[in-house]
Amino acid sequence: MNARLVEIVERADTRAGRTFDLVVLALIVCSLVALSIETLPGLPEATTAALRLLEAVITVLFTVEYGMRLAAAERKWRYVFSFYGIVDLVAIVPFYVSLGGVDLLAVRAVRLFRVFHVLKVFRYSNALHRYRRALTLAREEILLFLLAAGILLYLSAVGIYYFEREAQPEHFQSILHSLWWAVATLTTVGYGDIYPVTTGGRVFTFVVLVCGLGIVAAPSGLIAAALSRAREEEREGRAQEPRPEDEQR
Amino acid sequence: MNARLVEIVERADTRAGRTFDLVVLALIVCSLVALSIETLPGLPEATTAALRLLEAVITVLFTVEYGMRLAAAERKWRYVFSFYGIVDLVAIVPFYVSLGGVDLLAVRAVRLFRVFHVLKVFRYSNALHRYRRALTLAREEILLFLLAAGILLYLSAVGIYYFEREAQPEHFQSILHSLWWAVATLTTVGYGDIYPVTTGGRVFTFVVLVCGLGIVAAPSGLIAAALSRAREEEREGRAQEPRPEDEQR
Amino acid sequence: MNARLVEIVERADTRAGRTFDLVVLALIVCSLVALSIETLPGLPEATTAALRLLEAVITVLFTVEYGMRLAAAERKWRYVFSFYGIVDLVAIVPFYVSLGGVDLLAVRAVRLFRVFHVLKVFRYSNALHRYRRALTLAREEILLFLLAAGILLYLSAVGIYYFEREAQPEHFQSILHSLWWAVATLTTVGYGDIYPVTTGGRVFTFVVLVCGLGIVAAPSGLIAAALSRAREEEREGRAQEPRPEDEQR
Amino acid sequence: MNARLVEIVERADTRAGRTFDLVVLALIVCSLVALSIETLPGLPEATTAALRLLEAVITVLFTVEYGMRLAAAERKWRYVFSFYGIVDLVAIVPFYVSLGGVDLLAVRAVRLFRVFHVLKVFRYSNALHRYRRALTLAREEILLFLLAAGILLYLSAVGIYYFEREAQPEHFQSILHSLWWAVATLTTVGYGDIYPVTTGGRVFTFVVLVCGLGIVAAPSGLIAAALSRAREEEREGRAQEPRPEDEQR
Repeated sequence: MNARLVEIVERADTRAGRTFDLVVLALIVCSLVALSIETLPGLPEATTAALRLLEAVITVLFTVEYGMRLAAAERKWRYVFSFYGIVDLVAIVPFYVSLGGVDLLAVRAVRLFRVFHVLKVFRYSNALHRYRRALTLAREEILLFLLAAGILLYLSAVGIYYFEREAQPEHFQSILHSLWWAVATLTTVGYGDIYPVTTGGRVFTFVVLVCGLGIVAAPSGLIAAALSRAREEEREGRAQEPRPEDEQR
Repeated sequence: MNARLVEIVERADTRAGRTFDLVVLALIVCSLVALSIETLPGLPEATTAALRLLEAVITVLFTVEYGMRLAAAERKWRYVFSFYGIVDLVAIVPFYVSLGGVDLLAVRAVRLFRVFHVLKVFRYSNALHRYRRALTLAREEILLFLLAAGILLYLSAVGIYYFEREAQPEHFQSILHSLWWAVATLTTVGYGDIYPVTTGGRVFTFVVLVCGLGIVAAPSGLIAAALSRAREEEREGRAQEPRPEDEQR
Repeated sequence: MNARLVEIVERADTRAGRTFDLVVLALIVCSLVALSIETLPGLPEATTAALRLLEAVITVLFTVEYGMRLAAAERKWRYVFSFYGIVDLVAIVPFYVSLGGVDLLAVRAVRLFRVFHVLKVFRYSNALHRYRRALTLAREEILLFLLAAGILLYLSAVGIYYFEREAQPEHFQSILHSLWWAVATLTTVGYGDIYPVTTGGRVFTFVVLVCGLGIVAAPSGLIAAALSRAREEEREGRAQEPRPEDEQR
Repeated sequence: MNARLVEIVERADTRAGRTFDLVVLALIVCSLVALSIETLPGLPEATTAALRLLEAVITVLFTVEYGMRLAAAERKWRYVFSFYGIVDLVAIVPFYVSLGGVDLLAVRAVRLFRVFHVLKVFRYSNALHRYRRALTLAREEILLFLLAAGILLYLSAVGIYYFEREAQPEHFQSILHSLWWAVATLTTVGYGDIYPVTTGGRVFTFVVLVCGLGIVAAPSGLIAAALSRAREEEREGRAQEPRPEDEQR
């Protein structure tokens, strides 16, 4: 019977395993939709009650799933302390805690991480592995760019504070307020709630953008380049690396 | 006479075929311009009447084109149920339906897809094929990124809802409303109709943007990389793949 | 004496040639700064008069330059009808026309194109040539993407018009007005003067952005990829292609 | 004793050296946080006094650090006039000057550059060297793109000034004011403080964005491509280049 359980829970290449994964995925989506609707203001009492009932049912099913995964796992503690083991537990604990009256909004969002569990259905573990490998390959450059971006953000905030604090004291109150401008500008989001009005501030913004766009946009190019390198590596070295640790995840 | 028809309708390397394609392209553009002008408010009665007449003429010509393509096709049903066959039909049916009073705005836009038909004039089928091949090559990574982007959007919406719902209840009413903020922010569109004002919400936005820009921007880099791989493949394997199915499209 | 003139005007590797190029560059920058200042509102009469005098002096110097280039050119007509020959002429004609009272703002901006002339100083002809080659290499893909972007823009405009025309008739008056929204959104500029407010319009915007960002952002990646291919080609085939036509430009 | 000092100050692979670097990094972060908090409006007197005391302590410690680095350096003058030598000095001088009453906000931000000093802890000198090499490799293309971007910005400003000056004289007062629009638009920041309202201006914006996005976004792609080229070069030529000048920095 245990072999059958393992087949259902851990494998994605049998019919039972795929059905199990799809049911879990459907439950996750249901749970997220219910969570989203619950936050809508002015819901009728009946809807709220129905959503709470649905939540209870889904949580019980997730508890059953957790038990099944635990039973199927060869090394119990390894599953409990694995990434997905923790996610699975965190996804059900808030409900039982909330029976005592605690707001569960913040913690329930963690359930979303369970989506990764179902990736096995689509056999994405290869792509996910490649992505991890790409991040490892480009780690140094990405960290350097993140550091450079951080320094650039801080310097931009100090600079714009220097130029704009007199013209717009309500928006550029301090360096911390100016940092918000720097974030919105260098990511090119540009909400428009805060922007320079002095000539000095505008010229400074221009200089910062010319220097900064390359730094802020570069990591995405680096990740794409590292991904193609990881893909080539994989093709060349497919025979050598058996990667047994991927099966657990 | 049928051989002559095939030459006109299906081939782009003869003078008659190219003229036919250009006439169809011109009709498509005319039709789109007419559609755009028709929606302008406060048009004089005479202009509306003229546009409707133009629409009638163009639709009749498209009907003739559909008949010609059907006559030229070797396997009639295969053309009728092909992508372009359906587009060609959908482009003319709305007009005849609208003679009975139905609004045809939404359906007439479908005519735009016919533009792809005319791509043969510019011999773009190669580039289009390469693009399809690139999408196939990078399918797994793109799907993984889309999934990651979806999860990121949802988590961002839940997070900003948590931080801003008290400060701006009118903008961040629910998770569904917050999703609109997440979309506008992570794509860096940043309309400015909705943005965080609390310190917590701003720090959260910063963190989300640092993590998210790479994820949202990566697919475009992946497509570009896959395109160049597809181009190389093509160069190496030009002799092996005859691709007869491309002629039909 | 003609050999000396050729040395001054057409070569960038002699001291006289470099000085000549730098003087022309300085004149161009002066002219642009003068043009920019002239448009400032509320200038004192004396400043305007001084700027007009400066403009007259610069134009006379540019006329002298045009005469020198014409005299130095081996084939006069080829220079006159070359890209830079036309730019040089267009840069001086407006001034003489304006002596008759015509507004010269729009035409004077053309003078800016003369900047490319000075690129020879930095020996950028290699990089410029590589860029042209890259555009040739990626021409098909870029045109395909531009076409796809155009179709996407039109479809987005029709779609948002359908969703928002009732909620915001003043902003989404017609498909042509909606096109402005589509441009501002798909380029991620997002001014915030016009944005969807209905749930349908927002979901549609999300779908359009997911599909559209890859299409709109891809050409820049394609150009970068083509540039590196052009660079490799150049390295491999440096001996074979003498490219004599580059010297004229 | 001098050998011990060198070990502490200049090396990152001994325990003493790593501790020293981490202490300096912590001091830098402290100093920046103090600087940021100091600019907050409405701080109580006691907090300001405490922050000023903290600043004094940190500056004294930085002075000690400067002395240690000077003592440890083999060639004193080379350190004093090196990039980090100047940064180290600039980071402490403002405080002593401010004892005479001068505002030190602007100059204190320079301390941030010291962050690069600590990069040695993470052994980033490789990545940093690679980045410098990448900039050298792509120098010509990047300069060409920057020049093209500058010309495009100016032409855009002149164009939008031509289209919008009559409809919005308060926003598009002069070419210099229009340049601010061009910067905000072509970087896709789009604050929304200034945007075209005329049909001509909007069509012009569309054309500018279609031409301009590739030019503005290309440098980031070029840097990413050059980085991967630099990485390959490094791998191939690791044995040949000893690079002794990197140890000093």
